[in-house]
Amino acid sequence: MARNSLGREIPERFGGKPLVPYRDPWSTRPAADRATRPLRRADPGDKKLCHDLREAIERAGLRDGMTIATHHHLRNGDHLLNHVVRVIENMGIRDIRIASSSVHPVHAELVEFIREGVITGIECGVNGLIGELASKGELRCPITVRSHGGRARAVASGEVPIDVAFIAAPCCDEQGNMNGLQGPSAFGSMGYAFPDALHARTVVAVTDNLVPYPAAPVSIPQSLVDLVVPVQRLGDPAKIVSTTTRVTTDPVGLQIARYAAQVIEASGRLRDGFSFQTGSGGISLAVAENVRALMRERKVKGSFGCGGVTGYFVDMLEEGLFQALFDVQCFDLRAVESIRKNRAHVEMSADTYANPFNAGAVVNGLDCVILGATEVDVDFNVNANTESNGYLLHNTGGHSDTAAGAAVSIIVAPSIRGRLPIVKDAVTTVTTPGETVDVVVTERGIAVNDTQPELKAELLRRRAPVKDIRELQREIYAVTGTPRALDFEDEVVAVIEYRDGTIIDAVRRVRT
Amino acid sequence: MARNSLGREIPERFGGKPLVPYRDPWSTRPAADRATRPLRRADPGDKKLCHDLREAIERAGLRDGMTIATHHHLRNGDHLLNHVVRVIENMGIRDIRIASSSVHPVHAELVEFIREGVITGIECGVNGLIGELASKGELRCPITVRSHGGRARAVASGEVPIDVAFIAAPCCDEQGNMNGLQGPSAFGSMGYAFPDALHARTVVAVTDNLVPYPAAPVSIPQSLVDLVVPVQRLGDPAKIVSTTTRVTTDPVGLQIARYAAQVIEASGRLRDGFSFQTGSGGISLAVAENVRALMRERKVKGSFGCGGVTGYFVDMLEEGLFQALFDVQCFDLRAVESIRKNRAHVEMSADTYANPFNAGAVVNGLDCVILGATEVDVDFNVNANTESNGYLLHNTGGHSDTAAGAAVSIIVAPSIRGRLPIVKDAVTTVTTPGETVDVVVTERGIAVNDTQPELKAELLRRRAPVKDIRELQREIYAVTGTPRALDFEDEVVAVIEYRDGTIIDAVRRVRT
Repeated sequence: MARNSLGREIPERFGGKPLVPYRDPWSTRPAADRATRPLRRADPGDKKLCHDLREAIERAGLRDGMTIATHHHLRNGDHLLNHVVRVIENMGIRDIRIASSSVHPVHAELVEFIREGVITGIECGVNGLIGELASKGELRCPITVRSHGGRARAVASGEVPIDVAFIAAPCCDEQGNMNGLQGPSAFGSMGYAFPDALHARTVVAVTDNLVPYPAAPVSIPQSLVDLVVPVQRLGDPAKIVSTTTRVTTDPVGLQIARYAAQVIEASGRLRDGFSFQTGSGGISLAVAENVRALMRERKVKGSFGCGGVTGYFVDMLEEGLFQALFDVQCFDLRAVESIRKNRAHVEMSADTYANPFNAGAVVNGLDCVILGATEVDVDFNVNANTESNGYLLHNTGGHSDTAAGAAVSIIVAPSIRGRLPIVKDAVTTVTTPGETVDVVVTERGIAVNDTQPELKAELLRRRAPVKDIRELQREIYAVTGTPRALDFEDEVVAVIEYRDGTIIDAVRRVRT
Repeated sequence: MARNSLGREIPERFGGKPLVPYRDPWSTRPAADRATRPLRRADPGDKKLCHDLREAIERAGLRDGMTIATHHHLRNGDHLLNHVVRVIENMGIRDIRIASSSVHPVHAELVEFIREGVITGIECGVNGLIGELASKGELRCPITVRSHGGRARAVASGEVPIDVAFIAAPCCDEQGNMNGLQGPSAFGSMGYAFPDALHARTVVAVTDNLVPYPAAPVSIPQSLVDLVVPVQRLGDPAKIVSTTTRVTTDPVGLQIARYAAQVIEASGRLRDGFSFQTGSGGISLAVAENVRALMRERKVKGSFGCGGVTGYFVDMLEEGLFQALFDVQCFDLRAVESIRKNRAHVEMSADTYANPFNAGAVVNGLDCVILGATEVDVDFNVNANTESNGYLLHNTGGHSDTAAGAAVSIIVAPSIRGRLPIVKDAVTTVTTPGETVDVVVTERGIAVNDTQPELKAELLRRRAPVKDIRELQREIYAVTGTPRALDFEDEVVAVIEYRDGTIIDAVRRVRT
């Protein structure tokens, strides 16, 4: 055990690999060269089309101990990962690691395969049951949680070598040219799949919409795709857009959104060239609505909107409030429709989005980002992975990436959730270090990190309800009482990797 | 010296590197892994924008002995390569190798820098004066000629490590997002630049159209671009489209085009799903016209047109004769306009186009390709590099790539050019091996390679003027006389690399 710079106890090794404790957001430099992979040769007449997933897995040479990946654009409507693992189990292959871009509640089916030893490691964050069971000590399967940019980095650096990537391709031809724009499972941007296509040893395109050659436009070209498999259905279109993508109507949420917009205004960045990211939660979208109104009023011509993209950002693009959208993932069907037809709506690789170890990620150019939290602490550290009960229930997403990249990162959260305070002495799990978090906005007031003295002064000048974060905490504790400390075993069930590959926290088994 | 399988004498080493003699088009498999490069880290606030090329070259760390690259979409209108080398000379850097995608007559300015020792190697084919002077023994500078696919392979495999790539970017922002679609030097597809962007150690975007962030659409993303340099002018727009792009009006050419169309018809491939490539020469375009008329008549719905793309192919796309175009390079402004607006007109990397060592190049799916020649021989070997005087005057382009990839490769050439016969006992230089050449079409008749007995039978059945290639040769010699053998010194001034990296021929100094 070693303590990282945030005082978190980090094991020396995890899942068989040595760990490097987190130091700070900036000083870790890449030590390695970019990962390579064997060159191959393809000749006229070579056939990529497989009869089914089993044939593809055989031809890909998947064996015990290897690593597979899928990507999560279909989110909770994804059928592919479960399907792949069922076939793997059926073929008698064991000891497989999953390095997908994310795992969702729909993948609870994997629990049984973890118990059977078919899956023995998860090299990505998880949403839902798997993390919960791991937290309860009911699953033995090391989980390494990575941000979107951190995953791109790990794949590009070879830290996580993907043996076989299965890419869900909503529109694909028999040579593997593909896009996410057309077909019954169209999900828009294929952003998370690009690192896999470039770096996996074998790339398998899986499609429920095999079109006559060639598929066009081409997001991922045939030259990167080894095998093509038709399946009945990639996912459930109704659940592709599973996240809440409506502006909140809750008065608390609306108050938070007003304060957050006030922070953006006070930051001085709401001028021509403004760039912005929000998630798809109800409060985030309410902030976007407020920002949009301000931009209209001031006739601000923004630069770009970024991230997972919703219809709200599409409206802002079409209205001329943004010059372009950088889209790593479409959050709703309006975004899918837009990326299909509007070339200012740019499909972006997860690497371009957020990898800290490339020539420059898009997040580095963000003025403001709006992010959620399950907890924050008096050092502005943010927890977005575990809930207050200690269970690992959420993947990191772009949280720590955008917080590091954006000039002003703003956490929005109700001060009390489920009778528990949002601000604590120390978060249960650090997802994003306080050094990269500028403002915490609750309906009870705005806490500004000492790293932003000018913003704080400006907010005070504007008579915004600025409060010291400890004052905010005291106010909340006065209502909720001091929360009971959680009780953990020593056993580490997951580690939270910071975007640079160091370990920012460990998730321990909850004592029950 | 060793003889390769075509009997060509290949030196053991050239330009300091050992050579592998050519064997056949198919058996060489990649031995290496894909080239890697150091990962780097970019943080918010890092600036890529340089004041001028000198600053960019300094920051890129270019030193004596290194290799640079540019790409040739601006063709004979390109200002960039000369500009870069002038600055390099001015900085006192020497012993630089040029690994551009092609060098054109406009780059004759480099001759002086070669003489001064600023440039000491050319890792690409050359068009024009440099090759001529090398052939005359007036320049000491080893030239390695590569096909477009071969260059992509050499760059991806690390065989030609590019230290600094200078990418001409007609539309670019300060972070290096770029496209070739907008601006005074818009040339359309950036196809040849993609391997450089992925594999060069440092990538410099050079632009005469620096736009407010972000440039969109994005062909090459900021995450691959280290430095950005604004310049006055990338090239002379009037010369960007320098190739003849009009249908021939010469009766000989029109006859050849009719015969070539007859071959395509007889091949049985002119059916739904037909795919096709031609160059931009007058005869090629006349073939395209004939093919178009046939497709219309038969209501054939083609699959794709490929290669350097002209307005003729754009018309065919818009008419519905092709489902899509794969474009590595726009040959005229109509193609530029089309790729800007039509998403079925797909920008394609040179790697995807023709690299034999990836998961499957587009050329592998071609039904028919129309190619030119300076000479062919009775074994169907084709010379597209040297003229009958022995001077190295032409780059390979996609010649050997498409000949290998296409089901039916058709050489079109007048039987006599400058009083010299087109068919010889042995070509002066082998660009493309006869094993991959199916038909030679002249105005005097059609010679079919023995590799295509069914096509020959079908042409005979259709009473096409099929002739044995030796018969064709005799007929031509009867007019021209037997050509005088060229006289060469032993000195090798250039090698012709086949697409797989083996050496298919050596170009020797002409005895004068």
